[in-house]
Amino acid sequence: MIRRRALLNRAGVPSGCRRRNPEGDMRQGIIPTIDYRRGRVRILDQTLLPEREEILELGSPGGVAEAIRSLRVRGAPAIGIAAAYGVLVAIEEYLMRVSAGTAGYRFDREEGLVGGAITGADLQPLEAAVRESIRMMSETRPTAANLFWALERMRDAAVGSDAAELCRNSAGAAFRIHAEELEIERAIGEHGAPLVGEGMRILTHCNAGGLATAGYGTALALLYTAYEAGRRFRVFADETRPLLQGSRLTAWELSRSGIDVTVLCDSAAASLLASGGIDMVLVGADRIVANGDVANKVGTLSLAVLCEKFGVPFYVAAPWSTFDTDLQSGSLIPIEERPADEVTRFAGVRTAPEGTEAYNPAFDMTPAGLITAIITEFGVIERPDTGKIADLSRRARR
Amino acid sequence: MIRRRALLNRAGVPSGCRRRNPEGDMRQGIIPTIDYRRGRVRILDQTLLPEREEILELGSPGGVAEAIRSLRVRGAPAIGIAAAYGVLVAIEEYLMRVSAGTAGYRFDREEGLVGGAITGADLQPLEAAVRESIRMMSETRPTAANLFWALERMRDAAVGSDAAELCRNSAGAAFRIHAEELEIERAIGEHGAPLVGEGMRILTHCNAGGLATAGYGTALALLYTAYEAGRRFRVFADETRPLLQGSRLTAWELSRSGIDVTVLCDSAAASLLASGGIDMVLVGADRIVANGDVANKVGTLSLAVLCEKFGVPFYVAAPWSTFDTDLQSGSLIPIEERPADEVTRFAGVRTAPEGTEAYNPAFDMTPAGLITAIITEFGVIERPDTGKIADLSRRARR
Repeated sequence: MIRRRALLNRAGVPSGCRRRNPEGDMRQGIIPTIDYRRGRVRILDQTLLPEREEILELGSPGGVAEAIRSLRVRGAPAIGIAAAYGVLVAIEEYLMRVSAGTAGYRFDREEGLVGGAITGADLQPLEAAVRESIRMMSETRPTAANLFWALERMRDAAVGSDAAELCRNSAGAAFRIHAEELEIERAIGEHGAPLVGEGMRILTHCNAGGLATAGYGTALALLYTAYEAGRRFRVFADETRPLLQGSRLTAWELSRSGIDVTVLCDSAAASLLASGGIDMVLVGADRIVANGDVANKVGTLSLAVLCEKFGVPFYVAAPWSTFDTDLQSGSLIPIEERPADEVTRFAGVRTAPEGTEAYNPAFDMTPAGLITAIITEFGVIERPDTGKIADLSRRARR
Repeated sequence: MIRRRALLNRAGVPSGCRRRNPEGDMRQGIIPTIDYRRGRVRILDQTLLPEREEILELGSPGGVAEAIRSLRVRGAPAIGIAAAYGVLVAIEEYLMRVSAGTAGYRFDREEGLVGGAITGADLQPLEAAVRESIRMMSETRPTAANLFWALERMRDAAVGSDAAELCRNSAGAAFRIHAEELEIERAIGEHGAPLVGEGMRILTHCNAGGLATAGYGTALALLYTAYEAGRRFRVFADETRPLLQGSRLTAWELSRSGIDVTVLCDSAAASLLASGGIDMVLVGADRIVANGDVANKVGTLSLAVLCEKFGVPFYVAAPWSTFDTDLQSGSLIPIEERPADEVTRFAGVRTAPEGTEAYNPAFDMTPAGLITAIITEFGVIERPDTGKIADLSRRARR
């Protein structure tokens, strides 16, 4: 399930671990969601939005794992990128630590790994650090397919006859994951934008925008592309309890980009859909399985059922990396249960009596039969089913 | 649409405006939601729950209107009682004010109206104060049928050849509204409790409990009655955005009463229903029209559609006072739109960017076709329709 398309202009990778920003513009989305510079992962802390825009600089794999787990960075594609950079940080942190006490080579924040080589048995502690960071990242969010996909790529890449080569290969893989992701988002936007007509009213849930991805979005990529083409429309953003990604993040990035947005409580979507006030529902996905069933932010299933009842098209936009064709149906997707206090407290205020139990699944599963189409970087799959997704899989592996 | 059943043991009303708590136990629900004592409406301020239990004592009609508008007291039956008491407060406030400057009679907080009489043209300013208070109360919440029903009863009752009689009649009507309401809630509980079986998992939305009523509940009356009969079950309470009546109020009153409760985000109900985790959905109503369509807290429609999709029974419990048979269908019910900042701010924290528009309807409309049964004080109406509600209307008017 590894994408083969070479999306980088430069085939080579720089010597040493540091790449000195070789992609340049290629790593620029419209939102500064995530980046990697000078041994640190830079993350726009989404838990502080919309009140404050603050960039975190994380120099340890533990810090990156915490940021993923606490949803400072969230959304399947962005999590994949963050986890890949988390492995890179682990490598750099290890080399910084051992180089301080070893004469044979020197690790420099600016220059990367220089001087002597680490080979043979001496390489084993570094390989162990890589494995440990992969384990740490994989335990942060159990539902996101991109996370495991990105970590698999990093595991495959993090090899070499010496530390410098291992480091180069790892950095190359992480930066490639990021740059490819952006390219993919633009392709999703191009394929899906024709669905977004002038004057439409589009309902979305959670945040499948630039903040959830490399900076351009999956579901919202359609909207940005349509907007760039000059079409004007209104987006209704479900606030998306419990963590309010819709009102905090989607409303923030859409209005920042000039697109009209109205927020609403998740439960108010039903009456809007019933009254004919919505022309299409458009969401992202956290995992899509072989038969087209979709796991996405809790609340998605309800929208899909309402769309079926009231005759509104229901679209899912997601990159191929979100697909997990090893699972045959959505009922097999493990659903992450999150802490009760996300529901029973808000902004330090108790919203339920002390000790109240909560049911707090992060995701729900929407059966393929409720989905009008899935938009991927390879095109639009109408009425997804096992056959069409198998076709897509063959195109993706080409 | 006035209930004819004489529910008070005492046929007479006391002399003067004050009744010295004649109903005694009859005005006791299990929750101290609302009461009237010594010229003041006593309201448990529900905006402070579950953090603090605080009783407001309101001595002016403006104060009562503000409490209704701000949802310090909420739920159709409780609003009706509060509005009736609001008229009573207006009468007492007027009499206190004028008696201070008039020799012919005396108004005393303890004794009520004593001494001389106010008759003929002198009665007109009091009658104007009654009309003004009714107007003020009627403008607080446009969707609740009980509000208008209670105010109609108060307008009909607030007459007399002198002020003392007007006052007596008004007090009699207000106390009767309250006591009848409790009796009705117990009757709803008795009729509906057989639906609540041992070990069931019941999902509810918003708060249709003692806090929404005279103290016993409509939807929750079924649960309290089943619980008193010894059955044990678990309630899943939708938190009910934007004002969280489910997690703040329903979870509070159920757990206070010993019933197991789990809270969840409104959007998480879909996956519970899809997985077979719920045996019945049970909600209250704010207005039910001639064909059985139901207006209730926003989010109800979504649950009803999900119940239809996943084969779960969907019950509505409501007193006859909630019915508005003048309206032929739910599409004619005016839906109150509430302020945007209920959605865009929480506990003083901004949850959407400054200036974001919000769609914030207080209610939605569930078509009768999605309702398994409506439980009233007269019994259970399965698959409600215009004919069955016309039958109910005839029984109610008997």
